[in-house]
Amino acid sequence: MSSPAATPAYRRLSVEERRTQLLGAALSLFAHRAPEDVSLDDVAEAAGVSRPLVYRYFPGGKQQLYEAALRSAADELELCFAEAQTGPLTQRLTRALDRYLAFVDEHDAGFSALLQGGSMAETSRTTAIVDEVRRAAAEQILVHLGVEKPGPRLRMMVRTWIAAVEAASLIWLDEDKQPPLPGLRDWLVDHLVALLTATAATDGQTAAVVRGALAHEAAEGPVGVLARRVIPVVSEAAHLL
Amino acid sequence: MSSPAATPAYRRLSVEERRTQLLGAALSLFAHRAPEDVSLDDVAEAAGVSRPLVYRYFPGGKQQLYEAALRSAADELELCFAEAQTGPLTQRLTRALDRYLAFVDEHDAGFSALLQGGSMAETSRTTAIVDEVRRAAAEQILVHLGVEKPGPRLRMMVRTWIAAVEAASLIWLDEDKQPPLPGLRDWLVDHLVALLTATAATDGQTAAVVRGALAHEAAEGPVGVLARRVIPVVSEAAHLL
Repeated sequence: MSSPAATPAYRRLSVEERRTQLLGAALSLFAHRAPEDVSLDDVAEAAGVSRPLVYRYFPGGKQQLYEAALRSAADELELCFAEAQTGPLTQRLTRALDRYLAFVDEHDAGFSALLQGGSMAETSRTTAIVDEVRRAAAEQILVHLGVEKPGPRLRMMVRTWIAAVEAASLIWLDEDKQPPLPGLRDWLVDHLVALLTATAATDGQTAAVVRGALAHEAAEGPVGVLARRVIPVVSEAAHLL
Repeated sequence: MSSPAATPAYRRLSVEERRTQLLGAALSLFAHRAPEDVSLDDVAEAAGVSRPLVYRYFPGGKQQLYEAALRSAADELELCFAEAQTGPLTQRLTRALDRYLAFVDEHDAGFSALLQGGSMAETSRTTAIVDEVRRAAAEQILVHLGVEKPGPRLRMMVRTWIAAVEAASLIWLDEDKQPPLPGLRDWLVDHLVALLTATAATDGQTAAVVRGALAHEAAEGPVGVLARRVIPVVSEAAHLL
């Protein structure tokens, strides 16, 4: 038995614990910097270990660490849209967006670097991970819309809304995190309500979803507030009816 | 004077003409294939010249050709949103989207490869060109909205709509170009109308834009049709008012 002093601190962790620790250190670095601005030495230093030890766990070096960190961030992000299927749709959406936007806030520079493209660390594998998150988010939204077999129009609508949420998140980061998150979140909820309503005009399945969702909304909820604010703006356009 | 037969065909073009011809050949190849699937030999063959000649004009090889082709496609794309500032907003938007979607249709595989990311040919320069097109499109839309000093909410709205148009274009390509273009275009117009209306609920500047735009719309135009189709769907939700 060797004495504790003779054993370097990093020997005490199991393989799995060490891997998790290195990944955690990498994730915190990649969250706040573009992948170009993170070195293997940075990861080693943040984890308090040597560079060769990092290589022992991640022989593929920085790219492997980046992809593993992205994988773990993607798993976290996919959980954001998981939400009990009870209560008004806008309430569930509000909670899901709160989690998603908190993730964006906590991973600011890394989120921008990943989604703005043009990074050296971007590969067909990283692109596939990002697409998987988008697909999972779309599936979750469709579940909350109560649709089992979504038609092409409804699927396209949900996917374009997710693209809009992503774009809004990037703009929000780019504009020094303005407006404050609750304002951005409420606007994104209004955005989906508006998009659902407009799509209902030309798609029977979406119209059924809207009718069902509206029945569960409350007058003091987001849809009620939106409706009462929109009516005075559009009421001058009686010539269109 | 040498006889025509002694002069190879490619000698007859001026430097500028030759450059344009090579770029045209590259653009047609990059339009329908991912950059990975286009070689310098393909470009030489398509232009009917030798590989060394292509290198003489584009010493940076395929990457330089790709970026030059992208630059020229970007210039074309930026023109799509240029439109006289007369007539109802939805009419101008319809024409701009017709041009944009025709471009997407004509550059299908190249458009997907460029925007889906993860390509080896993607660099900070190609990303900057794509961003410039997005910015130019947003500026054009704001001009048509009649806004000189757009506030942050209106700017974010326009930029998220452009992201949605892009996402819808990619999905459309991915789904074997369904629905037919006029259906997609009309839905994207409805999308902007809905988004403007929802944003008007919480942004005074957008509310003024909506009031101004609605005054110029005709009952038989897209907004009139949309309004008359949406009313029966939402009229059951009187409990929200």
